[in-house]
Amino acid sequence: MRMVDVITKKRDGHELSDKEIEFFVKGYVEGKIPDYQVSALLMAILFKGMSDREIVTLTDLMEHSGDVMDLSSVKGVTVDKHSTGGVGDKTTLALGPMVAACGAVLAKMSGRGLGHTGGTLDKLESIPGLNVFVSEEHFLKQVNDIGIAVVGQTGTLVPADKKLYALRDVTGTVESTPLIASSVMSKKLASGSHCILLDVKFGNGAFMKDIESAKHLATIMCKIGNALGRDTRAVLTDMDQPLGFAVGNSLEVKEAIATLHGKGPKDFTELCLRSGAIMLEQAKIAKNEEEALKMLHKVIEDGSAFNKFKEMVKAQGGDVSYIDHPEKFEVSKNVVEIRASKAGYVKQIEALRIGENAMRLGAGRETFDDVIDMSAGIVLAKKVGDKVNVGDLLCTAYTNKDEYAEVMKDIKEAFVIVDEFVKVPPTVHDYIR
Amino acid sequence: MRMVDVITKKRDGHELSDKEIEFFVKGYVEGKIPDYQVSALLMAILFKGMSDREIVTLTDLMEHSGDVMDLSSVKGVTVDKHSTGGVGDKTTLALGPMVAACGAVLAKMSGRGLGHTGGTLDKLESIPGLNVFVSEEHFLKQVNDIGIAVVGQTGTLVPADKKLYALRDVTGTVESTPLIASSVMSKKLASGSHCILLDVKFGNGAFMKDIESAKHLATIMCKIGNALGRDTRAVLTDMDQPLGFAVGNSLEVKEAIATLHGKGPKDFTELCLRSGAIMLEQAKIAKNEEEALKMLHKVIEDGSAFNKFKEMVKAQGGDVSYIDHPEKFEVSKNVVEIRASKAGYVKQIEALRIGENAMRLGAGRETFDDVIDMSAGIVLAKKVGDKVNVGDLLCTAYTNKDEYAEVMKDIKEAFVIVDEFVKVPPTVHDYIR
Repeated sequence: MRMVDVITKKRDGHELSDKEIEFFVKGYVEGKIPDYQVSALLMAILFKGMSDREIVTLTDLMEHSGDVMDLSSVKGVTVDKHSTGGVGDKTTLALGPMVAACGAVLAKMSGRGLGHTGGTLDKLESIPGLNVFVSEEHFLKQVNDIGIAVVGQTGTLVPADKKLYALRDVTGTVESTPLIASSVMSKKLASGSHCILLDVKFGNGAFMKDIESAKHLATIMCKIGNALGRDTRAVLTDMDQPLGFAVGNSLEVKEAIATLHGKGPKDFTELCLRSGAIMLEQAKIAKNEEEALKMLHKVIEDGSAFNKFKEMVKAQGGDVSYIDHPEKFEVSKNVVEIRASKAGYVKQIEALRIGENAMRLGAGRETFDDVIDMSAGIVLAKKVGDKVNVGDLLCTAYTNKDEYAEVMKDIKEAFVIVDEFVKVPPTVHDYIR
Repeated sequence: MRMVDVITKKRDGHELSDKEIEFFVKGYVEGKIPDYQVSALLMAILFKGMSDREIVTLTDLMEHSGDVMDLSSVKGVTVDKHSTGGVGDKTTLALGPMVAACGAVLAKMSGRGLGHTGGTLDKLESIPGLNVFVSEEHFLKQVNDIGIAVVGQTGTLVPADKKLYALRDVTGTVESTPLIASSVMSKKLASGSHCILLDVKFGNGAFMKDIESAKHLATIMCKIGNALGRDTRAVLTDMDQPLGFAVGNSLEVKEAIATLHGKGPKDFTELCLRSGAIMLEQAKIAKNEEEALKMLHKVIEDGSAFNKFKEMVKAQGGDVSYIDHPEKFEVSKNVVEIRASKAGYVKQIEALRIGENAMRLGAGRETFDDVIDMSAGIVLAKKVGDKVNVGDLLCTAYTNKDEYAEVMKDIKEAFVIVDEFVKVPPTVHDYIR
């Protein structure tokens, strides 16, 4: 078999055989097929797509290109969730403890943030002492002991995805649905959980700009997961405005803690409850969503979800006094209030712009070498649909940088205020199973 | 400027600026941009195409990526021709001496053959002693002394094309009209002649399978040449059957000699006369095609075209006794006659199949390391439109190989004989200027 023939076949719009996909994935991981042939194939895939069979085969091969996590020693039903990335997305931090408090087991490997979307690992690391890189032994013991662990992905999982993703990133081939789906799902499958809930976000601040493309991606990912033996479902959620109020690492941890106390933002709480209910149904802990919702409300009210979060922080070496007293988190040197100069209703809060400006304030990385300022970020005071008077607080910005006037101006412009009444948009738009 | 942005822009169907094209061509030649990014861009170009402006800019940059041949010391108007490659295409060997005998100056750099199409250099090297790699000084002196030289391309011309072509060859990006056009034209332009005649072949044995795609390629190449200051024209010619009778190196040299004596195959003679007439008009040696044709007939009849070929062979160290006595060329050990087992009219002689079988007999290379058998090949006895009786000679195959039964069977199958009368197809289908 010659790689040039595989490229040409895909270029001309034909389906690749399982053997051909295996040839290129294994050949690439083993270093037998050079980058320049793989990047040409990736571009051909971007233009010509892949059939469901091709995508499932590709994902299966990627999953098994390295080690896979063996969760067979874990008692109970393991559940995992994955978000395609958004602004202010601290879902794992609140949802994880909620479902674990209900008896599901969350053995989750998470990622770093890059660009305008934050990463769960970075958020967790804003808790002093907390370690996201623990041994496999520690990870499995923690999961068995308390039912939850959120750690960094080990280097030996899915080497094919690492190599392919690095290549896609520099060759304009990130934006291909089959390649996105196989990349996400190969990691989720290699992480070993029985059930997977995908949170596919769409809108201004998401990778997918509209609900149709989000639905397309979600459907393919569910097909892959279910074809490869995992109960995989997806929610399609709004990312036209940031999720909740807080954007920035320790700011989001504080918001997650408030949510575990039942005092979170409405949209974020709704997303956690709806996602949690699906996960409990997937894990067969609840008969249906209604029963699951009751369980979730209970673990918030009786404090067991909050305590589960504390247990997790403690098990990973974090200082739990910050969880009990979130006011202990360091506050940025500069706290700037941004106020409305126009009355009306908030029609839009451009999530991408908020995310990018939070990054500029120090909350995120432009390149993997950047160091994050854990206290920096933005906390919204208004959400889409809210009524605003002149002088009302729109949001508060936090930064340790000294030059920020331009950023503040840009943050303010992210708020679109109109005269007409604006309906509050739903958070969860669709559910695919 | 980042290469990934250039790739993404083209991928999304936008026109690249001159600066962006310069960035990637220079960056690639200088080794600053890696193969894997360039191959992704080439695949995006294959799918999205290039505007005329983009193609002209690309070609101009490729032409000047290395040395260009300086023909300013050459007296007279320099003319060049290029064929996109066919089976039995010995045109340069007959056409060159014809136009040179009429006063045009042919300072031509030619290529090797690969696959089913032969190369002019290989054909010339079948003449004992003839050297195709001469110094630039020798080349210019020979051109000035006798008005014709056909040599190999020097290594310092168009390094961008060498690098890009090698990459395209292994990444499924050969079949892109803008990339083919810029590759051909950058070499022709760097070769320095005032006038360029392109012979764009189409049909079974050509790179372009139909006249529409051939016309598209020819039109773009003419645009490039004229935009960059050369009188560039093109003929669109038939490659559904081999050109002339002979396919194979010394066999084709013998046919070229016969043609210079006015005893060549009808189609091949027609192509030489028509192409030569255009070239003489381009060089302003003839007022129009009619006058040019008269001049060409004259140099054949009075022997001056044949003598010009002898002068060239001598100037490049070849043994001219072979030109005077073509019967001196070594004949293959095995001479096999292939005869018709069905009567009728020849409807088709699959050029690709004849070319590939000639290669198998020893006449061509499958890889650049293969050694050519100069005497091997096929000489047709019938052409499309000819009447055939059972037992008539269809062609004669020449080989020094001992196992050839399969090849002979396949050669015979290349002849399609039907009951109905078949019209002789034209050789030159169109002319673009």
